[in-house]
Amino acid sequence: MSRSTSAAGTDPGPGTPQDPGAAARRTGRPRSAAADRAILGATRAALVELGWSRLTLGDVAARAGVAKTTLYRRWPGKNELVVDALAELFDELELPADGGSLDADIAGVVLQFAALLERPEVRTALMAVVVEATHDDELRTRIRRAIVDRQKRLVLQGRARARRRGELAPDEDPAEAARQADLIFDVVAGTVVHRTLVSCEDVDPAWARSLAALVAAGLGAGPADRT
Amino acid sequence: MSRSTSAAGTDPGPGTPQDPGAAARRTGRPRSAAADRAILGATRAALVELGWSRLTLGDVAARAGVAKTTLYRRWPGKNELVVDALAELFDELELPADGGSLDADIAGVVLQFAALLERPEVRTALMAVVVEATHDDELRTRIRRAIVDRQKRLVLQGRARARRRGELAPDEDPAEAARQADLIFDVVAGTVVHRTLVSCEDVDPAWARSLAALVAAGLGAGPADRT
Repeated sequence: MSRSTSAAGTDPGPGTPQDPGAAARRTGRPRSAAADRAILGATRAALVELGWSRLTLGDVAARAGVAKTTLYRRWPGKNELVVDALAELFDELELPADGGSLDADIAGVVLQFAALLERPEVRTALMAVVVEATHDDELRTRIRRAIVDRQKRLVLQGRARARRRGELAPDEDPAEAARQADLIFDVVAGTVVHRTLVSCEDVDPAWARSLAALVAAGLGAGPADRT
Repeated sequence: MSRSTSAAGTDPGPGTPQDPGAAARRTGRPRSAAADRAILGATRAALVELGWSRLTLGDVAARAGVAKTTLYRRWPGKNELVVDALAELFDELELPADGGSLDADIAGVVLQFAALLERPEVRTALMAVVVEATHDDELRTRIRRAIVDRQKRLVLQGRARARRRGELAPDEDPAEAARQADLIFDVVAGTVVHRTLVSCEDVDPAWARSLAALVAAGLGAGPADRT
């Protein structure tokens, strides 16, 4: 999946396994070669048009102008292809230009994430692959590596900014810091998903601020040091 | 769905519409007549054995010893039946015996909810109906009424206890109090679901306490008044 094959034709990147068996067993995101990007873009377009349940690899191959065998060389199946196609969108999330406070930074990410969840390809497919993963351990691992683990960068960046501004104390214990980062991630992502998909309420700036204020206060954030 | 039919044979309850068309349009939980309880129990047993995707109304009817037409008189289809079957389990959640603090009460509910999510019938079906609801407005309304709105009682009870103990200030503004209760519900439920189904990590007592501490601090909870 992550291994470059003939269609892309570029050198394998560092850490790319040379053993095709190992490559086939790997989970994670495909290389960002042009062919892979085209396939993942075609996957998202097919999701928008057909929805999750009607999408087939044949549709994706036709849209991307590649053979179905090319898809199967790179992805074990539909679920894995869709996870990687969604993961590219998550990679576009970023902390807003420094909002001057932890509250503002969290609220900015919340609004971006809510907008992502509103996209039709995400709306139709994100929870669908999570459901599939409830009975597929390898898919669960792929979701964690391709989406969850990667997006924890946002929590780490936000915490680092808040420490620089003096809102949060320096981390004393790395293990405790990692546990707290995991908790913040689950709180922010889980709350936004639940609000939009289960409670079926909009995420607007006022709500984003109220969630951000709760999380920042919950972390014991103090005022930014303006000196 | 919520209307009593011949198999149960009891009087329609207060507020039950007499117009079958109105009854068919209603969403919500079925009456707790014995026949309904047996059908919902059979639905959960079928979910455990077959999983969400292989469940059919024929299986449920056979297990419950009723005709398929009886099911169709009460529920529009599989999705609605499953929502009501899951909703009965959510109704069993309760605040723990007074833990003496808001933290302890939240942690107790978090552990109960996580145990509920581990049940095989919930694991296979809860997110599946949420996914179905992304393209079915009536199903979304049913999930909200049968599960979300009903379980907000836990938030209201927890807040009331915390106010009695002096941990939280009295509510000044009812509209703001309602918004805050909604937020707490999405935070607690969403975080636990995300932790277990997306991040795929266990919910243990230490994690439950860390989430509870974050939420209580986020709400500005003070120490309980022991006088």
